[in-house]
Amino acid sequence: MNGAESNRRSAQSSLVSEWNDGKVRRLNDSLAGEEPLLIQVADQALTVTMRTPGDDFELTAGFLFTEGMVRSREEIVSLDWADDSEAEHHAVRVELKAGAIPRTQETKRNFLSTSSCGLCGKTSLEALYAPGITRPNPDFRLDPQVLCSLPETLRPAQTVFGQTGGLHAAALFDPSGKLLALREDVGRHNAVDKLVGWALLQGHLPLSNCALLASGRGGFEIIQKSLMAGIPLLASVSAASSLAVQMAREFGLTLVGFLRNRRFVVYCGEERLGLGVPRDQ
Amino acid sequence: MNGAESNRRSAQSSLVSEWNDGKVRRLNDSLAGEEPLLIQVADQALTVTMRTPGDDFELTAGFLFTEGMVRSREEIVSLDWADDSEAEHHAVRVELKAGAIPRTQETKRNFLSTSSCGLCGKTSLEALYAPGITRPNPDFRLDPQVLCSLPETLRPAQTVFGQTGGLHAAALFDPSGKLLALREDVGRHNAVDKLVGWALLQGHLPLSNCALLASGRGGFEIIQKSLMAGIPLLASVSAASSLAVQMAREFGLTLVGFLRNRRFVVYCGEERLGLGVPRDQ
Repeated sequence: MNGAESNRRSAQSSLVSEWNDGKVRRLNDSLAGEEPLLIQVADQALTVTMRTPGDDFELTAGFLFTEGMVRSREEIVSLDWADDSEAEHHAVRVELKAGAIPRTQETKRNFLSTSSCGLCGKTSLEALYAPGITRPNPDFRLDPQVLCSLPETLRPAQTVFGQTGGLHAAALFDPSGKLLALREDVGRHNAVDKLVGWALLQGHLPLSNCALLASGRGGFEIIQKSLMAGIPLLASVSAASSLAVQMAREFGLTLVGFLRNRRFVVYCGEERLGLGVPRDQ
Repeated sequence: MNGAESNRRSAQSSLVSEWNDGKVRRLNDSLAGEEPLLIQVADQALTVTMRTPGDDFELTAGFLFTEGMVRSREEIVSLDWADDSEAEHHAVRVELKAGAIPRTQETKRNFLSTSSCGLCGKTSLEALYAPGITRPNPDFRLDPQVLCSLPETLRPAQTVFGQTGGLHAAALFDPSGKLLALREDVGRHNAVDKLVGWALLQGHLPLSNCALLASGRGGFEIIQKSLMAGIPLLASVSAASSLAVQMAREFGLTLVGFLRNRRFVVYCGEERLGLGVPRDQ
């Protein structure tokens, strides 16, 4: 898929009706693209995800990595389209090194089987965690003033969101607040996978000196994906869930929520923001 | 799980730090509950979903129905906890009538296999649709003024969202704007499944004379679940995706987006809102 084609499919124009306090008119609206993508590993269907077309190889690489199926760039032998279409691709084929193939089957099967025996007790919650999660860089520091500036830096860069108002974003920043990479998708987890896939394919993992800003709420899945990529600080403009906070505390991730209007909440890992708060728990 | 226990787990209190323009303080924040739920059919693990505890039997029934695995209330023989815990349940066991059991396996297997052959061409997109979708009631009507009042009716009823700021909501309204039922969850699709599961277990399906208001964006999954429940009008406060609009047009669902501040956009099915717009496409 070339750039123009991908761009056309990431936002699609459509005639809609607008009702504004009783007045009705027809207008052209730009819709966020959502299309299925099949991921095949060695000719076996692994999963189908609904995604915004574009960066599909990064999405595939990132998904395999954040789910624990692939552990390094070297395990991916090739990434190709699995369908014949000239323009609208809906399937990616991945060839993995021999050692990684059983892991994809294992991870897929294990998710259900370990969950089914482990879910009854809180102590077995780790059965849900992807294998290979480690504690992120304890020495990363970010100035709260810089943190507050990240949403403003991100907004003008969100090109598809600007057109459609309907996309999630995930963006990486360095400690000076410089935007390193941004990916957008109808699925929040896909935006993070595209970003991590980019880092994996570019040889930038682990992201030990980066902050991740993600739209939407901070849930379990996003925490897990951030930790897999070695990210030390995750900020979202919305709330975090109970499981997200539990997992962030367990692995020492700095988790920030409600980042807007020069205010934010820190759920854990305040030391990376230089906040001297009493350890009262 | 009794009411008080479920309530405690739908929102959990946690000590956090607040940074407000340079001033730091500690405060108690209320977190939206997120915990795994395993769904077992006849002792076989079917899926694990991350959900907000509460209404778990409705969630299970709704999931099975909107995914096309169960077609009527009568096919569900029983719904029970599959774990021994007195308080914190994480697994539901469903017993289905003999005829429905192969369908759960079929639907699960088919999702990958039909997708893998059908995804390459646009004409085969229907391979992704759940079986059993029909066109919803063409005679349903809703006054645009009533539609605009729905978000205001919903807000005070969102008890857990009010506490946490971190939950999705799905709510059913009748044509006069009366709130019939509301469910909240960290997962947008779970909130809809809880609502549809409630309707299934109460014998209210199909919901031919109801409007559904859902938080978050209108994506493919929510359209599919609404159509399975026979809902003729779906409104969201955010944008719809390209695939959502395509599917809504194909099946004749009225799809509304950006419903806020006495304004909304209609992607298709304007006739149910009495909007006389030219048929220009």
